[in-house]
Amino acid sequence: MRLRLPRGVSGRTVEPMDTARRRAERVGDLGEREIIRRISRQTDPGRGVRRGIGDDCAVVRVAGSTHDWLLTTDPVIEGVHFLAGTAGRRVGHKAAGRVLSDIAAMGGEPLYVLFNLVAPPRAEARWIDDLYRGATALCRRHGAAIVGGDVARGPRLEVHAFAVGRCPAGSAVLRRGARPGDLLYVTGRLGGSLLGRHLAFEPRVEAGRWLARGRWAAAMLDLSDGLASDTRRLMEESGIGVDIDADRVPVSVAARRLRDSRPPLYHALCDGEDFELLFAVRPRRAAALERRWRRRFPNLELNRIGRATAETGVLAVVSNGRRCVWAGTGYEHFVT
Amino acid sequence: MRLRLPRGVSGRTVEPMDTARRRAERVGDLGEREIIRRISRQTDPGRGVRRGIGDDCAVVRVAGSTHDWLLTTDPVIEGVHFLAGTAGRRVGHKAAGRVLSDIAAMGGEPLYVLFNLVAPPRAEARWIDDLYRGATALCRRHGAAIVGGDVARGPRLEVHAFAVGRCPAGSAVLRRGARPGDLLYVTGRLGGSLLGRHLAFEPRVEAGRWLARGRWAAAMLDLSDGLASDTRRLMEESGIGVDIDADRVPVSVAARRLRDSRPPLYHALCDGEDFELLFAVRPRRAAALERRWRRRFPNLELNRIGRATAETGVLAVVSNGRRCVWAGTGYEHFVT
Repeated sequence: MRLRLPRGVSGRTVEPMDTARRRAERVGDLGEREIIRRISRQTDPGRGVRRGIGDDCAVVRVAGSTHDWLLTTDPVIEGVHFLAGTAGRRVGHKAAGRVLSDIAAMGGEPLYVLFNLVAPPRAEARWIDDLYRGATALCRRHGAAIVGGDVARGPRLEVHAFAVGRCPAGSAVLRRGARPGDLLYVTGRLGGSLLGRHLAFEPRVEAGRWLARGRWAAAMLDLSDGLASDTRRLMEESGIGVDIDADRVPVSVAARRLRDSRPPLYHALCDGEDFELLFAVRPRRAAALERRWRRRFPNLELNRIGRATAETGVLAVVSNGRRCVWAGTGYEHFVT
Repeated sequence: MRLRLPRGVSGRTVEPMDTARRRAERVGDLGEREIIRRISRQTDPGRGVRRGIGDDCAVVRVAGSTHDWLLTTDPVIEGVHFLAGTAGRRVGHKAAGRVLSDIAAMGGEPLYVLFNLVAPPRAEARWIDDLYRGATALCRRHGAAIVGGDVARGPRLEVHAFAVGRCPAGSAVLRRGARPGDLLYVTGRLGGSLLGRHLAFEPRVEAGRWLARGRWAAAMLDLSDGLASDTRRLMEESGIGVDIDADRVPVSVAARRLRDSRPPLYHALCDGEDFELLFAVRPRRAAALERRWRRRFPNLELNRIGRATAETGVLAVVSNGRRCVWAGTGYEHFVT
């Protein structure tokens, strides 16, 4: 969860060309994606890097190994990802959960987690204990261990989590790989995570591994910034368009309970921090997937919510036979 | 560099027992080491973890692999590790350098680096570009690649770096392993890094690997918190005492240039952020080490600065035949 409401438009104002040039460009003028694109240009791919910046995890291969390694990192920051006063156990759960979810989104097996903790001197030692207890409980459930980290003083609480996972060589499911005609699925129900789920979600590690093992998912990512925004990432990486079937989007009870000016479907599309899996399946395999899924995960909902199209870059929402191009986004860091 | 001066005493005040119990313990009451000890108690060792929390890197082994993996993380924070206004290139160098130095201290080969960047919206995009350029240049020189990371909004600039390295299975040099009688060596010159070196140091990756390959170092760590403080860590992990020969401690030109109320030797012992290697060598191998070192690293100073003793926990400084037990420490986060 981020504490700002998502917005329907990017909000960046257009300036006359010469004014824009005279002013130094600031992080606040750019979106998170543009910053990451810039970062990619300053760095260079190294030995054995199968996938660098731009996916849920980096995928690296070491010569002679039967496995590829998955590397990922996520911040959890007071005032951004949780409110002051939140129980340490829940913050620890979230910090570990975010990186485990990234590994799940590649179809990987999580192994090791490290935490960089920033804390003000007034923070209660017991709160920190609880944070590690919460993180350890979740990691243990998914077969991972917390093996290290560092602590530093700062004005507010922050946890920077780093995770290492693995998958059989060549089996990582990337964001690229979806083709026009593929069917799109999501696990669980979406929206309203602000009401509590953002601190208590279960990363879909088992589901992700199962999808990768059976080669069911042609492309996959986890929903961190909202279905609309994350679908755009899948589109960009795969070079496709997407039609979302609004009547099939699984809206959570929490999204219905929010009762603000936005309809529940809007929350399901835009809220973010669902940490469910979004993935593309070839149409000929869809029926078999749905059958096997029900047997393997009887308690985890799976919904077919749309279809990949050849209209590269066009995200459309279809409802009652009407098709509208969707210009809105989910939460974007920095764009104000 | 940390912007607070190191202090000679721990500064923790003793309270009557029942007052202390009634008050919740706060992070500011504990030292960094005590916090890390508490964290260790909340976490549990996992599969294949040879060394968890408490060394420069975690060491993990994957069944069937010819190599162990080294995992580490370090923060670099505005106002703590660098001043506002510092060039992005230098901050990037430091952020990458700190984690490469951790891997050097295990005798490892750095492979991959990830950055979690926290930045305020007013930060200049060009500064961020420079940060990644500085980090990439250093990583490339040592054979590592920046493969991922995340960005988030925050009140001040922070870089949380994570690194993955490797070493032949079983060859990582730990902090434990020194025995009474071992001779202690440091690379380079110490103290005064505040004057600039803390932003421009070269992590001792080549030296660390060479020391591990030849099994010269029985125990090793990098000097991040000051020779005195880091020697205590070696002592704790190895269960030894240490006599430091004050006349042999290599004092840097910068430490002499500081000209404050402390003598240059004090700076060499306490300043921290030297990022040189401190290691223990069996006495029968010392002469050969010194000979080979001069051939292999003609431009990197190596000094024998002391000896491990059987007086567990006692750090003494010997000068002109006088031996004084040293109660001071280097910089400790949180102890105020």
